[in-house]
Amino acid sequence: NGCTHNTYKITVIPGDGIGKEVMEAALHVLNASGIEFDYTFADAGDEYAEKTGVALPQETIDAVKKSQACLFGAVGESAADVIVKLRKELDLYVNLRPVHSYGKAGKFGDVDFVIVRENTEGLYSGHEEYTDEGATALRITTRSATRRICDFAFDYAKKTGRSKVTAVHKANVLKKTDGIFKEVFYQTAEKYDDIESNDFYVDATAMYLVTRPQDFDVIVTSNLFGDILSDEGAGIVGGLGLLPSANIGDKNGVFEPVHGSAPDIAGKGIANPSAMILSTVLMLEYLGEPDEARKVEKALVETIDEGKIVTSDLGGSSSTMEMAEEVARKLSKL
Amino acid sequence: NGCTHNTYKITVIPGDGIGKEVMEAALHVLNASGIEFDYTFADAGDEYAEKTGVALPQETIDAVKKSQACLFGAVGESAADVIVKLRKELDLYVNLRPVHSYGKAGKFGDVDFVIVRENTEGLYSGHEEYTDEGATALRITTRSATRRICDFAFDYAKKTGRSKVTAVHKANVLKKTDGIFKEVFYQTAEKYDDIESNDFYVDATAMYLVTRPQDFDVIVTSNLFGDILSDEGAGIVGGLGLLPSANIGDKNGVFEPVHGSAPDIAGKGIANPSAMILSTVLMLEYLGEPDEARKVEKALVETIDEGKIVTSDLGGSSSTMEMAEEVARKLSKL
Ligand SMILES: CC(C)[C@H](C(=O)O)[C@@H](O)C(=O)O
Ligand SMILES: CC(C)[C@H](C(=O)O)[C@@H](O)C(=O)O
Repeated sequence: NGCTHNTYKITVIPGDGIGKEVMEAALHVLNASGIEFDYTFADAGDEYAEKTGVALPQETIDAVKKSQACLFGAVGESAADVIVKLRKELDLYVNLRPVHSYGKAGKFGDVDFVIVRENTEGLYSGHEEYTDEGATALRITTRSATRRICDFAFDYAKKTGRSKVTAVHKANVLKKTDGIFKEVFYQTAEKYDDIESNDFYVDATAMYLVTRPQDFDVIVTSNLFGDILSDEGAGIVGGLGLLPSANIGDKNGVFEPVHGSAPDIAGKGIANPSAMILSTVLMLEYLGEPDEARKVEKALVETIDEGKIVTSDLGGSSSTMEMAEEVARKLSKL
Repeated sequence: NGCTHNTYKITVIPGDGIGKEVMEAALHVLNASGIEFDYTFADAGDEYAEKTGVALPQETIDAVKKSQACLFGAVGESAADVIVKLRKELDLYVNLRPVHSYGKAGKFGDVDFVIVRENTEGLYSGHEEYTDEGATALRITTRSATRRICDFAFDYAKKTGRSKVTAVHKANVLKKTDGIFKEVFYQTAEKYDDIESNDFYVDATAMYLVTRPQDFDVIVTSNLFGDILSDEGAGIVGGLGLLPSANIGDKNGVFEPVHGSAPDIAGKGIANPSAMILSTVLMLEYLGEPDEARKVEKALVETIDEGKIVTSDLGGSSSTMEMAEEVARKLSKL
């Protein structure tokens, strides 16, 4: 409609199993959008490692570094060597995970909160050692990484009109590491007068997510806690098939579903493509295309709400691509 | 009815806040049982620390060591210095947490699984250090502690007629520490032909507990994962007011509700005493009084099922002691 758009350089890493299937589906939807993309396909994952001995080749890292954003499907057993390494290599220090219920309100009612997960340190630091008795792993908390993730959480709350940020930690036991997390969180909170702040222990939070998920708005937490709580959030809004995520740094963004490569259903063409499609929505927002992001989201939500051309986990019997085609059809009319 | 019972030596640590209230309630119920107890009351917690500067005095530790079992209410901010220390000092290496739905089946249906949480190491080892950039905490996994907790889990499954044990870990990221956990788990499983075994990542488990809690039977996991998942389990069966736990070692047992001292409702006499009463049920089993354990449980479950004389979190309007009196009344008729 007259306006010119950029052509965005995107690295696409389909990966393993259903990663490839949901990626094909998501790209099909993006093709129906008003935006142009210049895709570079790149390798990573179990299959690639089997052939080459390397799960994440340097060319893939370089490709992601050179592109404006990366779409990532899912990888199998090599996930820690691929996605965790990518997060660290590119210093993608934020893992943003919106937990939003779509479709008919389930048994948890309408749920809408966002988990801001620290993405570079904690127990993901890779400092593990064998000892005489077994092994040890180092949980690392730095003030600088804590500060930037808390800053991001409050900024994000402000930008998106959310009113509360909750820090989740275990400072009663992890007095030093999570003591710092809590302290830096409240220092950050002081800079944001109009945003409410509170904090809970991670165990209590795991309960509250079940008993009163509506009480949460933005959650900011360390790496592994964010990992656990976001999967729990997936359970609350109806399964991993619906949860997207954004790995964001100062220079790059990598967008991936929270789900994995699901070897049990891979190859059947029945995976729910929603989480991957919603990951492209997060990418469009990141690229500064909020209008297009809203359209893709709307086309998907309408498809889910109608409940006709959806995958089996959503109560339908359509294939991954049939659902994607329906979303694309709706999108092209918006 | 003619048979003689032992008089059991029990240390009672009411602690802080609702700890004191639910303890009074539970002792009232035990008084209506057919068993005799010789109670020694001992101090621990925030209130005691305020007066003396020490949260867990040596006399309390000694008292617990000398008694056959200990009933523990709840303590406040000093919990890590009290209960975590007690677990370590007495080498109470098992934290047994049955997650059982009582009363009308809630939105999760009937739920009945048991979490066997390693209780002495992991991130609770107390090895935290400040560094130039922040702080580090050491997650310790020893083969010996892993072996005894896995042994306990399979033994427990066998003894209680359960058919499956699930290991929960994060071995894709924590390859060494949780690699050992997984390896030792499957070594143990080999010794138990008739018990099924499988394993999940902790994040996936956090989701499955919400989406299909019926799939779990016995869960065995490391310290912090057990902490998080048991609170999530509490949410699934209707709140922390219903979850008991047993800290068990080769010589002692400490029985405590999973809930804390709940400063927000302390002093009002409205706390649900069920978790503490169910903790006495676990104690009775531990003492070798399974018949009496079943009776106390039955009296409580009937009270909850009737739903008349119950606390507000269970939909009633009775006080802590009114509910305990009702349970005691029912118990004395069994
Ligand atoms: C696959 C795994 C390494 C990864 C993680 O633990 O971060 C995944 O669970 C996630 O949440 O993105
Ligand atoms: C109070 C706290 C130290 C304790 C723990 O983390 O173990 C509690 O949450 C529990 O689960 O018993």
